[in-house]
Amino acid sequence: MKNILDRNQNKADEVRNLLSSKKVLMVNIISSPGAGKTTLLERTCEELGSKFRIGIIEGDITTDRDAQRLKKYNIPIVVINTEGGCHLDSHSISKVLDSFDLDNLDVLFVENVGNLICPSQFDLGETFKLAVVSTTEGDDKPGKYPMLFREARAVLLNKIDLIPYTNFNFDSFSSDLKKINSQIPLFEISSTRGDGLKGWYDWIEDEINKMH
Amino acid sequence: MKNILDRNQNKADEVRNLLSSKKVLMVNIISSPGAGKTTLLERTCEELGSKFRIGIIEGDITTDRDAQRLKKYNIPIVVINTEGGCHLDSHSISKVLDSFDLDNLDVLFVENVGNLICPSQFDLGETFKLAVVSTTEGDDKPGKYPMLFREARAVLLNKIDLIPYTNFNFDSFSSDLKKINSQIPLFEISSTRGDGLKGWYDWIEDEINKMH
Repeated sequence: MKNILDRNQNKADEVRNLLSSKKVLMVNIISSPGAGKTTLLERTCEELGSKFRIGIIEGDITTDRDAQRLKKYNIPIVVINTEGGCHLDSHSISKVLDSFDLDNLDVLFVENVGNLICPSQFDLGETFKLAVVSTTEGDDKPGKYPMLFREARAVLLNKIDLIPYTNFNFDSFSSDLKKINSQIPLFEISSTRGDGLKGWYDWIEDEINKMH
Repeated sequence: MKNILDRNQNKADEVRNLLSSKKVLMVNIISSPGAGKTTLLERTCEELGSKFRIGIIEGDITTDRDAQRLKKYNIPIVVINTEGGCHLDSHSISKVLDSFDLDNLDVLFVENVGNLICPSQFDLGETFKLAVVSTTEGDDKPGKYPMLFREARAVLLNKIDLIPYTNFNFDSFSSDLKKINSQIPLFEISSTRGDGLKGWYDWIEDEINKMH
């Protein structure tokens, strides 16, 4: 396991240096299955597609369903099928970077495989990790799966429109999160309904601009 | 990886032989984080606790929160903390079996770590795997994460009370599932509200009785 992680780290460092030299922000988006990563990307492409040159890497086990949903934005998308694998790694990312014109890209979103555990252990060479978690998963996720929340640069709490129909306790969620990562920005959003997305757009826009 | 899986399989066969000789049904419950495994176990202990001798193994990364929720049923519970590991394996199960009085047990529920991918590759020596998936994860889960749905003996579709507030399409879910595993029993339930649980109780009762 240590060897695997060491080799992954070396390649991740290469990827990070390359993207940094090209001034491309890379965001590694991690969540449980069905927390809303693809819908968030749909919204984000709609909002920021005219301001920035966006590329997407779609990590999926066996299908290209998420990529199909994003095709309508007419941006470069590459699918990586892990064929059963539970996370992306830096070698698979490095291989597909050739497919992008990095000189004409501002931001590369990587939608990792739906998994709250393994992807947080593999550096892809990203600028930072982004955690997406949905209210319907329960308020105990930061406490029970701390690794991702420790590593991430920001947290998007999705599906806040469903809180009235669940027993989700925001104070409990937020207090657990702060114990793990006291300064982390938290955006409360509904990707389907649009609530709270302005804060996310402003924040990610700042992050893209920081690269220049 | 092959070595790891081979060693896991040998120990799983041992576990399976032991439990079979003791006539204990072992159910390996697998789902995404927050799909409702613990609430299902709470309900099931309430309903079947007076008819059968139940034991529980709680797989969690670092906490004993789920076990705390189940303590009130006064049944034997053992926690396995994987310390970052993304799934249980047969060696960890084998080690804790000593803590149970197997001669006085009818069914052993194993709540695996919340992860739709890795746990489906590791045989624990269970009688069968049970897939729990919630409507709020979206209707595309069987298509996108087929391994578990191929392996499982039954599927519980949880949180059906939330369908009206989501874009979950039951026909699409069901048709994807049937392509992967055409004969698999599917129970539509709400563990919080109680909908559909009678079908699950009857089915699992039959499975427990088959061991004798």
